[in-house]
Amino acid sequence: MMTLKRHLLLISNSTLHGGGYLEHCQEQIQKFLGEQVKRVLFVPYALHDRDDYARTARKKFESLGYGLDSIHEAADPVEAVQKSEAIFIGGGNTFRLLKTLYDNGLIPVIRKRIFEDGIPYIGSSAGTNVATISINTTNDMPIVYPPSLQALGLVPFNINPHYLDSDANSKHMGVI
Amino acid sequence: MMTLKRHLLLISNSTLHGGGYLEHCQEQIQKFLGEQVKRVLFVPYALHDRDDYARTARKKFESLGYGLDSIHEAADPVEAVQKSEAIFIGGGNTFRLLKTLYDNGLIPVIRKRIFEDGIPYIGSSAGTNVATISINTTNDMPIVYPPSLQALGLVPFNINPHYLDSDANSKHMGVI
Repeated sequence: MMTLKRHLLLISNSTLHGGGYLEHCQEQIQKFLGEQVKRVLFVPYALHDRDDYARTARKKFESLGYGLDSIHEAADPVEAVQKSEAIFIGGGNTFRLLKTLYDNGLIPVIRKRIFEDGIPYIGSSAGTNVATISINTTNDMPIVYPPSLQALGLVPFNINPHYLDSDANSKHMGVI
Repeated sequence: MMTLKRHLLLISNSTLHGGGYLEHCQEQIQKFLGEQVKRVLFVPYALHDRDDYARTARKKFESLGYGLDSIHEAADPVEAVQKSEAIFIGGGNTFRLLKTLYDNGLIPVIRKRIFEDGIPYIGSSAGTNVATISINTTNDMPIVYPPSLQALGLVPFNINPHYLDSDANSKHMGVI
């Protein structure tokens, strides 16, 4: 059996109730990236306002001692992935994220960087969803139609990062 | 402007908290179908156990004075639609329902029956979702991948039959 070089940090959500952006997991991020990584490639595709999202992420990563480049500012997204030291895919709408990864031809190149080159991958929320086999278990609304529900397949199972038990006291509907 | 013969009853859900199957809307169903309709064609595709679902629906419609044929028991689903006096599409998973409608080639034939022949259409939950332009606004989990999110387009807008305001007191996550 082949041993794959996977270096993954899969976070359920970017913010805990009452805390700041990535505050609850900042120590894990620093420990995970270590001192070798200097710059992180950020993928803001899951949200509509990419500029604003990149600003938020840049501010946080710079406070932790890392430079941040947002892929939406790169002339060639594929080349940006090929040159990256580490990738961070943020949360938002999982359908919008996966569709944009396909539209920009990024699925195979990200897989190559993770499996063959062993660069670190951080995902949060939708960025964790797309790291799995498929997005068939997302809670998100299908606001756009990706060419497939198959995702990056960095782990051999699916994840629902926002699972909630059903509310036994709800009177919203009956069954079905 | 062309006037289309649309005869639609779109129900949000099949059961109200504490009530029986279709109990909360049975008077509306009888008023809507009237005395001309004798048999209803039931589409159980949104649930996995079609036999069980058809039994539940048949029991209810027979109690209201209508015969019920389930499309999953027909040798030719397209022919079943062509011969139907009225159509009832029940709730369950909207992705599973829409995919099966496409797989069986039923989208154009149902549209023809509604728009050109003016037969009555009843939808509940997922059956209401697929009556709209598309399922882009469903709350359901994408457990299967339909060939499109475009739906029957019986009305010129989308519906979210199970909309809930967000819970301002939730501490489940932060933002994003």
